[in-house]
Amino acid sequence: MNDRARPGPTDRRTVHEYVDGEVRARPDTVVTEEPLEIRLEWPGHAASRVSVTMRTPGHDFELATGFLLSEGVLAPGAPPHSVAYCRDRALTREQRYNVVTVVLDRLPVRHPGLRSTSVSSACGVCGAQSLDEVYTPDTDPMPLGRPLAPERVTGLPDLLRERETLFGRTGSLHAAGVFTPGGRALLVREDVGRHNAVDKVLGARQLGHVSYDESAILCVSGRVGFDIVSKAVVGRLPVVVAVGGPSSLALELAERAGMTVCGFARGGRFVTYTHPERLGLEPVRP
Amino acid sequence: MNDRARPGPTDRRTVHEYVDGEVRARPDTVVTEEPLEIRLEWPGHAASRVSVTMRTPGHDFELATGFLLSEGVLAPGAPPHSVAYCRDRALTREQRYNVVTVVLDRLPVRHPGLRSTSVSSACGVCGAQSLDEVYTPDTDPMPLGRPLAPERVTGLPDLLRERETLFGRTGSLHAAGVFTPGGRALLVREDVGRHNAVDKVLGARQLGHVSYDESAILCVSGRVGFDIVSKAVVGRLPVVVAVGGPSSLALELAERAGMTVCGFARGGRFVTYTHPERLGLEPVRP
Repeated sequence: MNDRARPGPTDRRTVHEYVDGEVRARPDTVVTEEPLEIRLEWPGHAASRVSVTMRTPGHDFELATGFLLSEGVLAPGAPPHSVAYCRDRALTREQRYNVVTVVLDRLPVRHPGLRSTSVSSACGVCGAQSLDEVYTPDTDPMPLGRPLAPERVTGLPDLLRERETLFGRTGSLHAAGVFTPGGRALLVREDVGRHNAVDKVLGARQLGHVSYDESAILCVSGRVGFDIVSKAVVGRLPVVVAVGGPSSLALELAERAGMTVCGFARGGRFVTYTHPERLGLEPVRP
Repeated sequence: MNDRARPGPTDRRTVHEYVDGEVRARPDTVVTEEPLEIRLEWPGHAASRVSVTMRTPGHDFELATGFLLSEGVLAPGAPPHSVAYCRDRALTREQRYNVVTVVLDRLPVRHPGLRSTSVSSACGVCGAQSLDEVYTPDTDPMPLGRPLAPERVTGLPDLLRERETLFGRTGSLHAAGVFTPGGRALLVREDVGRHNAVDKVLGARQLGHVSYDESAILCVSGRVGFDIVSKAVVGRLPVVVAVGGPSSLALELAERAGMTVCGFARGGRFVTYTHPERLGLEPVRP
């Protein structure tokens, strides 16, 4: 695995920086974006392409596994038989690190062909073939659990930022982390794609790299689109805290799924959009 | 078209805001995110689904047209025969505003089936079926043109922000705008999806809503992924100025396409990553 052909999460370049009329050339670090092709194999079915996603290399097995979980191909809690980089001789050594094959020891829960051939660099609903398919999560509403102290919420984005290793060097990454109700970081993942960072978090649990229960909180560095809430529903994460704001469709799904969505969490402030009762607040009707 | 069933770009909600230990309920505005299904029809071929993208309603015809241009289905400068919301009786009135049919009067340049069934909320390379397909732009490098004054670059993000109508109300949108080298805004579009905003800009030109030549500058509110550069190449926009930073793959393509990419343009500062000669700067080799 320590292979020079393997792309790193960042890349060095020489750039020109312009500051108030002065220009200087200097070295700089940019985030790596490379396609990851996810292939799926199961008994009686040869490996075939399910998706190509534009991602930042690193934790690729978690990404592939989390993607397949989000897509309903894997059942929650059932890890795949194996996950490996490609050994296809038709590909260059570089390309082989951009292809991951996930092997199941049973039939997929949902045939990936139903939502396949997707390439996504920053979304998690790629490949759905009709409007109905986009709106799929059909799990039970999440239990209320023990109330969460609002002051815990405000501190999460800073805790997320502290654990980011790549953002500071590039200024161009999304992060997703899972925290305990007490504010302890269990896992943080980064990627150029918002939804990839969340897929890595989900995949890490599916692969047994981390363990958490339904009291865990998902904190994301960016905005909360439908894709992020959809993944949190699949991952049974009942609280999503974001630095950015949510979309209408994200909130519709969160409302239905019993999920608390907090946005604009920065500087001692946040806004709760759905299920405020989890924070001990009275629900209001619009 | 003035139909109550038609989704607006924003939605009203009642939220709880927490500020330094105090909580109050107040009305709030969130950005609308809804799926848009793009259908394509040409002589001898009945309308069929090409893609579903999660988008903010508004300028949907531009979005559909720009998407098809970006995907190589439409030739640059060749507008479609017609673009219309769906009249499919099997759909509800709301759903019909989430389906746009583009009718061509000739065969598509590239069959959309090659890169179809994609749903993208924030990416522009959805549906590519292999690594090779992601890397498709095969146009000639863009001409250098007249040099651009660096001080023009620093002012563009503020000009973009001034023209944003939805961001201020929601805090959750991406914007893309086309500017003259002198800094005049020709067109600004907003969307929850970064790439959708750029597709709307490209589609507006394709539909004759705006006109510009190869001296125009594309300014985007967010980061510059491969998808954004890829679209700018198709749109023959030789300068991309962004508030955020670029990815490695975006810069590889920009380098090859003769495009100047400037990132982190804020507060009198910006960083030039590729083809600095367009700004009158000496190229440097890493």
